[in-house]
Amino acid sequence: MKLTILGCYSATPRTFTNPTSQVLELRNHLFLIDCGEGTQVQLRKYKVKFSRIKHIFISHLHGDHFFGLPGLISTFRLLGRDTELHIYGPKGIKEAVTLFLKLGDSWTNYRLIFHELDSDRSEVLFEDDTVSVQTIPLDHRVYTNGFLFSEKPAPRKLNVEAVHKHEIDRSQFNNIKNGANGLSANGREVSNEKLTSDPPHPKSYAFCSDTAYNEAILPLIANVDVLYHESTFLESESRLCQKTKHATAKQAAQIAHKAKVGNLILGHYSTRYKSIDLFKQEAEEVFHNVELAEDGKSFNF
Amino acid sequence: MKLTILGCYSATPRTFTNPTSQVLELRNHLFLIDCGEGTQVQLRKYKVKFSRIKHIFISHLHGDHFFGLPGLISTFRLLGRDTELHIYGPKGIKEAVTLFLKLGDSWTNYRLIFHELDSDRSEVLFEDDTVSVQTIPLDHRVYTNGFLFSEKPAPRKLNVEAVHKHEIDRSQFNNIKNGANGLSANGREVSNEKLTSDPPHPKSYAFCSDTAYNEAILPLIANVDVLYHESTFLESESRLCQKTKHATAKQAAQIAHKAKVGNLILGHYSTRYKSIDLFKQEAEEVFHNVELAEDGKSFNF
Repeated sequence: MKLTILGCYSATPRTFTNPTSQVLELRNHLFLIDCGEGTQVQLRKYKVKFSRIKHIFISHLHGDHFFGLPGLISTFRLLGRDTELHIYGPKGIKEAVTLFLKLGDSWTNYRLIFHELDSDRSEVLFEDDTVSVQTIPLDHRVYTNGFLFSEKPAPRKLNVEAVHKHEIDRSQFNNIKNGANGLSANGREVSNEKLTSDPPHPKSYAFCSDTAYNEAILPLIANVDVLYHESTFLESESRLCQKTKHATAKQAAQIAHKAKVGNLILGHYSTRYKSIDLFKQEAEEVFHNVELAEDGKSFNF
Repeated sequence: MKLTILGCYSATPRTFTNPTSQVLELRNHLFLIDCGEGTQVQLRKYKVKFSRIKHIFISHLHGDHFFGLPGLISTFRLLGRDTELHIYGPKGIKEAVTLFLKLGDSWTNYRLIFHELDSDRSEVLFEDDTVSVQTIPLDHRVYTNGFLFSEKPAPRKLNVEAVHKHEIDRSQFNNIKNGANGLSANGREVSNEKLTSDPPHPKSYAFCSDTAYNEAILPLIANVDVLYHESTFLESESRLCQKTKHATAKQAAQIAHKAKVGNLILGHYSTRYKSIDLFKQEAEEVFHNVELAEDGKSFNF
């Protein structure tokens, strides 16, 4: 599981900071999460292969999470894309993007499939044999979802020595990997735990931005390996959180602590702060594994 | 008259090249022309004061001339702008921009005034005591206008020595500057040309992008000081011009030559070319004063 931060600052793109966008590599998928203005340039800068992106998840329709989308969709066309592209985002996203394309008489030559969201409950957006993606309803000024990316448990690992010892026929291997007991050549049942070992722990990543402090998300993000939680402000500016529905670094850490996550990544910093080091300091008073998102930084988990 | 190129490449923004946008400083105005994705970052990079921009002219609604506009308008709000902003562009631009603002529930706290265009004839968009701006209808795949920025002639320059010599009363000065004859203390009429000299030549700038080769624009751009004319391709790719409604460097030079302009600036290069020097070489075979637009380059005329 590899996460690359393309942009992690709030509000407006600036010379050296970019609005929210990130790429999550999980099993063979490359998921794009949010698409602030300039995302396509960041994708080029960090050498992300455009054609590998097949699913784009948009948390909400504020400009710093969304204004790069029409341009990226147009660029896919100019690059000759022919594979379909799925866009998941709040109701209204389809009308907005298609209006921009229509005005330029620039339709895509690939299938563009919108999945518009308006539920206040978590729902599964994408699922295949290896991963699933579901929404995390957040508490922001406009309708907003975070996204939970979860690997599915891999099949159990066959213990080659044990299956030989018990003379288990090859035809049973798939069933055993999926948890069944074995049957030895002499007709004796052999318990699954004697024939297999646990598969690698399935990884999970929760993206939560933008949101006010919101304990309602705890059941959804409990025990995830990595939580990206917005921290627009420091506690010294906590008075701004209520009005703007954002969170402080301390609040992000409180959520991480209560959800017992493995690692917390902070981001969506207000550009009012000269240094982001204070965000880490503030969060570490509450939670131990704190990382700072920075434009261009990759995390391997 | 100072022109700053913020971006001058066609199609998509890339790591080191930006789509079309430029700033024209003329008398006390700062006009923004086109607004491709990333324009607000380019404005910051080249230290253009955001608050000085009061008029934005959009040639057409292809992404590389327009997708930076919703973001710039939002950023003006975040920066606390309170002065009104005029947007001139093709019909549909108001619906597109306001839909983007509406979806984010992010209305501006300043007056945003759209002037939607759909005429195929040149029309005056803005005029005050010192300058005027009018459209130059172009020939592109979608409805497109270039823009002609013209200084108005300044008042004639008073010849201080001559007015003293002829004992002309101060109360007549304004009339004389505007071309009237003077009346000396002894009642004799003194011709205007004895009392004044010519004001500086009023400057003019024509922006023509995107367009196919189009002689219909010649009367509008005749004798302008500076013509920016798109040159997406070189003659070696001229076959692409007909389909895409773009021009070659040679065609841009032919227009410059026939319109007897002072200087030609080339731009809107296709990103297929490794070097833009060939554009200058090709144009110079037809026209003498050729300059190459480059992102971040300023021209003083």
